[in-house]
Amino acid sequence: MKIIVDGMGGDKGYKEVVKGSIDAVKELGVEIIIVGKEDIIEEELKKYDYPKNAIEILNANDIITNDDEPALAIRRKKDSSMVVGLKALTENKGVGFVSAGSTGALLAGGLFIVKRIRGIERAALAVPYPTTKGMSLLIDAGANVDSKPEYLKQFAIMGSIYCEKVLGYKSPKVALANIGIEEAKGNALVKEAYNLLKESTINFIGNVEARDLPQGVCDVIVCDGFVGNIILKLTEGMAISIFSMIKEELTSNFKSKIGALLLKSQFSSLKDKMDYREYGGAPLLGLKQPVIKAHGSSDAVAIKNAIRQVKNFVENQVINLIEDDINN
Amino acid sequence: MKIIVDGMGGDKGYKEVVKGSIDAVKELGVEIIIVGKEDIIEEELKKYDYPKNAIEILNANDIITNDDEPALAIRRKKDSSMVVGLKALTENKGVGFVSAGSTGALLAGGLFIVKRIRGIERAALAVPYPTTKGMSLLIDAGANVDSKPEYLKQFAIMGSIYCEKVLGYKSPKVALANIGIEEAKGNALVKEAYNLLKESTINFIGNVEARDLPQGVCDVIVCDGFVGNIILKLTEGMAISIFSMIKEELTSNFKSKIGALLLKSQFSSLKDKMDYREYGGAPLLGLKQPVIKAHGSSDAVAIKNAIRQVKNFVENQVINLIEDDINN
Repeated sequence: MKIIVDGMGGDKGYKEVVKGSIDAVKELGVEIIIVGKEDIIEEELKKYDYPKNAIEILNANDIITNDDEPALAIRRKKDSSMVVGLKALTENKGVGFVSAGSTGALLAGGLFIVKRIRGIERAALAVPYPTTKGMSLLIDAGANVDSKPEYLKQFAIMGSIYCEKVLGYKSPKVALANIGIEEAKGNALVKEAYNLLKESTINFIGNVEARDLPQGVCDVIVCDGFVGNIILKLTEGMAISIFSMIKEELTSNFKSKIGALLLKSQFSSLKDKMDYREYGGAPLLGLKQPVIKAHGSSDAVAIKNAIRQVKNFVENQVINLIEDDINN
Repeated sequence: MKIIVDGMGGDKGYKEVVKGSIDAVKELGVEIIIVGKEDIIEEELKKYDYPKNAIEILNANDIITNDDEPALAIRRKKDSSMVVGLKALTENKGVGFVSAGSTGALLAGGLFIVKRIRGIERAALAVPYPTTKGMSLLIDAGANVDSKPEYLKQFAIMGSIYCEKVLGYKSPKVALANIGIEEAKGNALVKEAYNLLKESTINFIGNVEARDLPQGVCDVIVCDGFVGNIILKLTEGMAISIFSMIKEELTSNFKSKIGALLLKSQFSSLKDKMDYREYGGAPLLGLKQPVIKAHGSSDAVAIKNAIRQVKNFVENQVINLIEDDINN
């Protein structure tokens, strides 16, 4: 199995991508195509001992950054690692694509280059959402800011399949993010989506209130991309703010500094629980081939984990399952 | 100045309302009409020493609970403390109304009985939102789940006036809750609202991302009621979850228990910062007369603070200012 990796995306640069790719080759038994500037990637690869046949480089001289306008960059930067990588995917040089680059550009590239599965109205970004119980999957986390009820139904189906097949949840509990748990609650979009989901074959458990999301009361959280993005970023922002308030309080006097020292390991364990990087990449669901968005600040471990997600994605035929479910 | 208070709303019952009303009479120099079951309120009042002329009781035998369907309860429970109180308000028996009862019923009652200011398209619930810096005002927190751009513009104007006149913020910074800070970001609703707000005379600072809300980067957060409710409840849920995770970690072994003991006062100070009850009631803005929703678990202090809000509301002529701004 050959998987294509964007060598130039991500804040930490190509070195972590190279290391993550080599680890993936060794641990997962996959082959990797790293897309990017051939000379520097080749130089980096030389530092490691690994099966030479398992990694090849596909040259691309340009890079799409977070400052580029996504759709424009995909159209114009033909020689960027992201565009070259996505094109290679459509030419079946590999079975899936991983990038830690611009989320917006990857969404645009996925739509324009890889294209949607027949019958899928909108592709969606499914992001791991940390909870006190472990992890939920939030779909859509921002790909579609204006949605229709039918889109939400498709997000729910795709999220359920991915959650079961790739993340290993048995009969995942799917819920609609809403302002109350009663069926009649919500705006017009959510109420209509509720009716569609009631009729579906997935394990739809109804509405979930935002208050209960951090406690992991459901496995798949379904919402439009605007609300999903608000949920995701507010969760991050609250974690950051509360931990910084705690830090401030803990260093406010001598007694509390001693207390803080005694609790150091507890706090770092808590921070780990809230760390998005621990939870793997975010798949773009609804595309014809697997595309995984790795966290922007992915290190080698995160890159390797995203490669593993592609492997699970392919081995469990997620795309076929989505296509079958949507068109039957 | 005479203010009408719902004696029967709220989880803590009429005793806290009676105590809060007496404190308000003594500290704020206002008069109070308590609406509810005359016999038990009269009995409770006897326990206190206060200027007898300053508090009167308006009898109402029924109670609207959180289990009642809001609009139905307002129409049918004519003898409930909430309906009797709101009717007394429209008959100018008092200058404003405070209730710790059902939010939904108070919204419905406000609309059906008190009615909207001329030119206001929708009334909105403006809720104090705790931040690391102090407090922002979130409008709309759930009154209107399907909104139009013009509503959001009016929410922004009403929120700005209230924030300045009642909460005392000078030239409050007003921002749209959005998925990015750039002008072009967002769904159709928010983009159009942005254009309307650019033209307005309030201190509109543009978009705010959900990630930055807990840090108090703006004074007034404008959003539709669906998104506002998600923001409010997720903020509560995150605070609850993180503090319960901390509690669990802190009691995980002997060393950490000692650490926790040393930090006890720090943690309770943190919890206070996140406590909604500390921040006063939520006004229903856009109605012809002041209506304040006090927190459901309001104690006497919270009731007194909500009464103080009505006083500031009236003294600063917030309703006239809103009417003038909207119609000019």
